[in-house]
Amino acid sequence: MLIVGELINSTRKSIAAAIEAKDAEAIQKVAKDQEDAGADYIDVNAGTFRDKEPEYMKWLVEKVQEVVQVPCCIDSPDPRVVEAGLSVHKGTAMMNSISLEKERYDSLIPVIAGTDLKIVALCTSDAGMPKTAEDRINVAEELANALVKNNIKLENIYVDPLVQPVATDVNFGREFLTAIEQIMTRFEGIHTICGLSNISFGLPERKFLNRNFVVMAIAKGLDGAIMDPLDRRMMTNIITAETLAGRDNFCMNFLSAYRAENLEM
Amino acid sequence: MLIVGELINSTRKSIAAAIEAKDAEAIQKVAKDQEDAGADYIDVNAGTFRDKEPEYMKWLVEKVQEVVQVPCCIDSPDPRVVEAGLSVHKGTAMMNSISLEKERYDSLIPVIAGTDLKIVALCTSDAGMPKTAEDRINVAEELANALVKNNIKLENIYVDPLVQPVATDVNFGREFLTAIEQIMTRFEGIHTICGLSNISFGLPERKFLNRNFVVMAIAKGLDGAIMDPLDRRMMTNIITAETLAGRDNFCMNFLSAYRAENLEM
Repeated sequence: MLIVGELINSTRKSIAAAIEAKDAEAIQKVAKDQEDAGADYIDVNAGTFRDKEPEYMKWLVEKVQEVVQVPCCIDSPDPRVVEAGLSVHKGTAMMNSISLEKERYDSLIPVIAGTDLKIVALCTSDAGMPKTAEDRINVAEELANALVKNNIKLENIYVDPLVQPVATDVNFGREFLTAIEQIMTRFEGIHTICGLSNISFGLPERKFLNRNFVVMAIAKGLDGAIMDPLDRRMMTNIITAETLAGRDNFCMNFLSAYRAENLEM
Repeated sequence: MLIVGELINSTRKSIAAAIEAKDAEAIQKVAKDQEDAGADYIDVNAGTFRDKEPEYMKWLVEKVQEVVQVPCCIDSPDPRVVEAGLSVHKGTAMMNSISLEKERYDSLIPVIAGTDLKIVALCTSDAGMPKTAEDRINVAEELANALVKNNIKLENIYVDPLVQPVATDVNFGREFLTAIEQIMTRFEGIHTICGLSNISFGLPERKFLNRNFVVMAIAKGLDGAIMDPLDRRMMTNIITAETLAGRDNFCMNFLSAYRAENLEM
């Protein structure tokens, strides 16, 4: 499972304050904590600062990479911001995210075409948010084909079928899960990724719902998540679900986490 | 989700003692507790008492039905025992279980053919325990066809693909889950059911593994479980997974359980 640590995002007040104050230490602590907790990428997002977003993105990437070994996930729909982040990033970054929305797609393709970047590909188009599994699979297919034509390897594509709240429509969870399975089966080598918290919007006990939903998504083939890796119970559910899904030879990860007393149930 | 309460089983010392002592009150408490906790069927098993099994089965069914409204699941591979249980059972029972093993199959068919019993159909044959999803699906198909030919309705068949320990073979969980999905997709109207605890055999934190595995199985379509309904955390995971899987209109079950403070996480 590829874990993208989501905590460095300027929609969070403490992060916005740290960015504005250029408080490198505060940002670096959040980066390091996520790496230590098992993040494979550190997401960096300064999207609330319109004009200064490119400058802040550069600064975030530099400061984060001073203290962690894992690469960054440059999180912006704006090609100038993505370019700014990539211009200082060492190693191979992830880019979060492209979609089939024409303006976003056309402006990002020149930045990412032919690169080895990992690309988060959202299942949205100008027709709006997907509702059914079929909507998602259709957008995923068109977007993946377009990316491959632009010399992005299929195995570098992380399709995000977009989780929507089950409290809004009883079918939303199932349609998402079906999409995960179909995308992973039909496009061999591709990956899937998602944020989880939307599933529980409007319901009580959201964290419990989210961490059960990730277990279900792993049963269907999900192999990436954009999440808070400091959430020990969520991480425990992921380790456990991967073991049960046959992704953990000799149950070594599960047993190691158990012995290290890292499982929190 | 159809819940079969598994606690009245003579392999449990307290139950064996209660049966031998004809302690109806002890048996009835276990039956009632399971019904109150949400069991749809009360499994009754006196399998450790060879010669007396038919007599004890009769007694168990009678005593259980004095105190609960839900039917029994007559649990024996022996046609004499099944007949004994059915002879006193009021309403429509479940029978646990038939398989493709020739001796078991041939002896049970005359007892169940043409009835409205719910039938647990194990995915085993004289070739032994299944290993792959394909093994399971092949046995399921042959067994379901044979049962339907004997005038058992497809919707009364509960296929048990048989959970095997992931610590024995890393693929065992995944093969089981694939079998659930394929059986539920290919034979429309059929049901699936299983015991869960084998999945975690040989590993620590077994209850945690079991209750995550049921969440994964529900994502794949499982709609029955033979389990301890007094396990509140397992029941909470089932309610939650069903909500996330689109089986809970307006999230009413989840919200009711939440409001009644019945969720245990």
